[in-house]
Amino acid sequence: MYYNSLDEQYKCPVGAVKLGEKIEFFIESPDTLEAYLVIKRDDMPYVSVPMQKAEKNGKFGFKTEFVPSEAMLYFYHFQINEPRETKIIQKNYDIDYQLTVYEDFTVPKWYKNAIIYQIFPDRFYNPFKTPIAYKPNSFIYATWKDKPMNIINEKKELVRQDFYGGNLYGVIEKLDYLKLLGIDVIYFNPIFESNSNHKYNTKDYHKIDSMLGDEETFKKLIAEAKKRDIEIILDGVFNHTGDDSEYFISAKKDKSSKYYSWYYFKEYPNVYESWWGFDTLPKVNCMDESYQNFIMGEGNSVLNHWTSLGVKGWRLDVVDELDGSFVEKFKANMRKVNEESVLIGEVWEDASNKTAYSQRKKYFMGHQLDSVMGYPFKENVQNFLNGNINGYQITENFKTLWENYPREAFYANMNLISTHDTPRCINVLNFDETNFKSAVTVQMTFAGVPHIYYADEVGETGQMCPDNRRGFPWGEENEEILNFYKKLINLRKNNNIFVDGEIEFFYLNDDVFSYKRYFKDDPEKVVYVMIMRKNTLLSLELKPMTVFEYFSGETIKCGYGTLNHNFDKGCYIISTYPLN
Amino acid sequence: MYYNSLDEQYKCPVGAVKLGEKIEFFIESPDTLEAYLVIKRDDMPYVSVPMQKAEKNGKFGFKTEFVPSEAMLYFYHFQINEPRETKIIQKNYDIDYQLTVYEDFTVPKWYKNAIIYQIFPDRFYNPFKTPIAYKPNSFIYATWKDKPMNIINEKKELVRQDFYGGNLYGVIEKLDYLKLLGIDVIYFNPIFESNSNHKYNTKDYHKIDSMLGDEETFKKLIAEAKKRDIEIILDGVFNHTGDDSEYFISAKKDKSSKYYSWYYFKEYPNVYESWWGFDTLPKVNCMDESYQNFIMGEGNSVLNHWTSLGVKGWRLDVVDELDGSFVEKFKANMRKVNEESVLIGEVWEDASNKTAYSQRKKYFMGHQLDSVMGYPFKENVQNFLNGNINGYQITENFKTLWENYPREAFYANMNLISTHDTPRCINVLNFDETNFKSAVTVQMTFAGVPHIYYADEVGETGQMCPDNRRGFPWGEENEEILNFYKKLINLRKNNNIFVDGEIEFFYLNDDVFSYKRYFKDDPEKVVYVMIMRKNTLLSLELKPMTVFEYFSGETIKCGYGTLNHNFDKGCYIISTYPLN
Repeated sequence: MYYNSLDEQYKCPVGAVKLGEKIEFFIESPDTLEAYLVIKRDDMPYVSVPMQKAEKNGKFGFKTEFVPSEAMLYFYHFQINEPRETKIIQKNYDIDYQLTVYEDFTVPKWYKNAIIYQIFPDRFYNPFKTPIAYKPNSFIYATWKDKPMNIINEKKELVRQDFYGGNLYGVIEKLDYLKLLGIDVIYFNPIFESNSNHKYNTKDYHKIDSMLGDEETFKKLIAEAKKRDIEIILDGVFNHTGDDSEYFISAKKDKSSKYYSWYYFKEYPNVYESWWGFDTLPKVNCMDESYQNFIMGEGNSVLNHWTSLGVKGWRLDVVDELDGSFVEKFKANMRKVNEESVLIGEVWEDASNKTAYSQRKKYFMGHQLDSVMGYPFKENVQNFLNGNINGYQITENFKTLWENYPREAFYANMNLISTHDTPRCINVLNFDETNFKSAVTVQMTFAGVPHIYYADEVGETGQMCPDNRRGFPWGEENEEILNFYKKLINLRKNNNIFVDGEIEFFYLNDDVFSYKRYFKDDPEKVVYVMIMRKNTLLSLELKPMTVFEYFSGETIKCGYGTLNHNFDKGCYIISTYPLN
Repeated sequence: MYYNSLDEQYKCPVGAVKLGEKIEFFIESPDTLEAYLVIKRDDMPYVSVPMQKAEKNGKFGFKTEFVPSEAMLYFYHFQINEPRETKIIQKNYDIDYQLTVYEDFTVPKWYKNAIIYQIFPDRFYNPFKTPIAYKPNSFIYATWKDKPMNIINEKKELVRQDFYGGNLYGVIEKLDYLKLLGIDVIYFNPIFESNSNHKYNTKDYHKIDSMLGDEETFKKLIAEAKKRDIEIILDGVFNHTGDDSEYFISAKKDKSSKYYSWYYFKEYPNVYESWWGFDTLPKVNCMDESYQNFIMGEGNSVLNHWTSLGVKGWRLDVVDELDGSFVEKFKANMRKVNEESVLIGEVWEDASNKTAYSQRKKYFMGHQLDSVMGYPFKENVQNFLNGNINGYQITENFKTLWENYPREAFYANMNLISTHDTPRCINVLNFDETNFKSAVTVQMTFAGVPHIYYADEVGETGQMCPDNRRGFPWGEENEEILNFYKKLINLRKNNNIFVDGEIEFFYLNDDVFSYKRYFKDDPEKVVYVMIMRKNTLLSLELKPMTVFEYFSGETIKCGYGTLNHNFDKGCYIISTYPLN
């Protein structure tokens, strides 16, 4: 009794399928009376589909075909009736196989080809001696090298904001640095007017924050970035506003305000719904028509205003809090302004089957997101390197993600290892630079879009917020790490197999994470990536071939036989052809 | 049986006496067999001095003379032996009369005539847009109007310093403002190099703090102040240093350091005595010879260095922690550099009889202090105005202070109502502006040196530290209060009776605090000050005279008789001659 959803012999095609595609299932189960495919559409009960006896490549069992009727998740298992008992084939005990059915969609190629750089604007660079503006009742770090801290009171409430004074002028000055690093896209944490350093509490969606610059600065940034083929992605924080926004102030002052319907007042005007109970972040009713018009309607809506200026994409903050119809409309309208633009969602889990507020999210069904923040990528890589999961588990985890995500989504996944919401990767890895380089190697050789959180590339460290939001250590860069980044980014850019090639995970050893990249139509070109989390003796079955190891620069001629070799801890990129 | 230590008939002279002066005591006690003056020198047991039967102005009792042998405190009471019982005359139950005996000393006249203005330099004025220097790991307030706060961690430890960036350039620019206000002396909170905003943890005693300016700035300040007849007094913080001072760092690094002997190491190098247990403030052994040489020896000692530049006086921080011999030496050496210089001590209680570490302090015995910070003055005035003590109690309290202090000390007392270590007076008075003006009126009409804590004069408010250290509200001055200050300062300056005249307290009513100012040799000139803490009906016995009320400008002609008059809450200055 055997079934392997990742093997075309058993499920064809493997992975997520496009709506309308026929799926052929085969299970190996000789000497059995009858078998059923037991499958359910996410919103429907199970149905049992009788399977037909069949033989495939000398294996005996049952087969059936299935054509999903909706772009939706399906879940299935097999039921085998034997004379004395009924057997079930599931993915794991009590867990069905997931079948993702989606309407076909295309992520713009420029994005899939890109290296993303995330900038927390207050902390990146200030070319001037002092901030260009100041916010009342806030603090400025005396020096750029001071460590960030939350300014709290005795009740641990944040009582003052803290600023370094980085700004868009600083980003403009550092565009050449980013270009040299190999960056194609800057994803900005919010840059609209707000009283905080993180700016997730928007005060004015139509205004660049005064400490960062103004609309002219932003236009100049766009223009200068364009000159260097660097695109800009903005953070869209549409689930809540700041409580100091004119929208909320007006809504609170007068029920006849045009903003009144945006908010959820429980007891007017002082009791209202807010994000995670933070009074400063009144929640918005994203289904409100006037709000939707404001954010993404005709004319000078927030979406139109900034996208028209050349913004190439948006990252939707807490997208799980937004109704799917809002996200779909946002994407459609965004594409109207720029058909090459991309929509990214903040999702922390497997985004293919995420459920929020008892609603199944349809991020990847074709009309919502192009890409999500790849937190599962980060978790898998870091957990493996830290010894929390082994080589088998990381392989299985990635196989599952690969299977659940539409190919476009997997190849557009933001493969990150640090963000403004996590400790920096080097810290998570206990400052083990070899493992850190391994993580970067996975990013740069994986399917999906590598993402660099500012200053990771120069070895900056940082614990959880706010320590992960330090001022970029200009002048104190770790050159070795920076050069490693440049080398790996170049490798990716010069060898399209890393961007476009297939990916297949294979298990070698509990201390090894390995996968290969290849082209279906060019079987001569294969790249094997092997990440050793410690010195490991591997026993490899070889065929006669010549391979190239990227880091050492060695060329290895193999014959038939078994190679027992001690691999040092670290990462290896072995290719069947010389990489550029 | 009657004795009144404040009446020359009973004790002559009244008040504190100079060493060598003979005191005549008289007690009224007719029909009594015998009486004794029971008196003790502070460091000796009581002795009983038999008194002689006597008659004085028709009163019968006993008298004796007494010549103290030391400049010291004495305490005394009287014992009266009657046939059946022994009676005791004490000041209060179980409390002796205090007799202060001092070696004669003179406080420089310029100081006694002065109005002092206290400046917390980081908070007074910055004429530039940004601080002139920055300290690592500290915060700058984004705007001058931000409210001060302590930046603490979850354990309530102060973790970062906070700066506004006020500096000596700012003081120079505001000298004309101070002159116009009527200021004669600026007392600065510490201005030497330190990592804190208050600078009580000195890093370098020979250096002006980099955020405040440099020695050139300070020299310019002295010169510009001199042009305007404004003197400068510095804060001398000699009981401890900062733990980041080269002195302490060197002492901690090497026992052969010339600074090693300055400190009290318990377990070298990490356990040492510090002020109030604050590790950042290692306590200094002020008796150490090398330390004394450093602070006040020959050559470029701290005292010499700054006094030679024109500093006109020093305020000794926590003077009660310093050995008396240190203070005496400091004063003597200070006077060697400038015989017109003054020494002020930070004392919170009645400074005539203060005891610290079981040692009686000899601040006013002739060789130590010229003046102390007048916290008892503040307490009395505020407690009366707030209703915590009544008119009788404040009168008694001031009588006691007057009696205990040598005249020079009383007339040099720093009469303050707010400092950097207390909430601002207007806050203590619950923002009652009438009472606040009454407090200012007492300051300006009292014996002793009025002291203004920066920005009190423009109505600035502030709770306890750090709220009492706000940025001076330039441009938002309360003009009414400012004008009141100017008016009262002018009054004091134009009428020497307030500076030089005698003072006598008299009780009228529980809601009134009243005293008169007069000249012994010019009985025609008398000023009565009456402070009403609420609307009060007073019944006054009048003699035929013409009096002038300062605030109303009224001239009142009185005849014999009883005047029943409702006085509104507030303050009255009634003089027998037109005040200038």
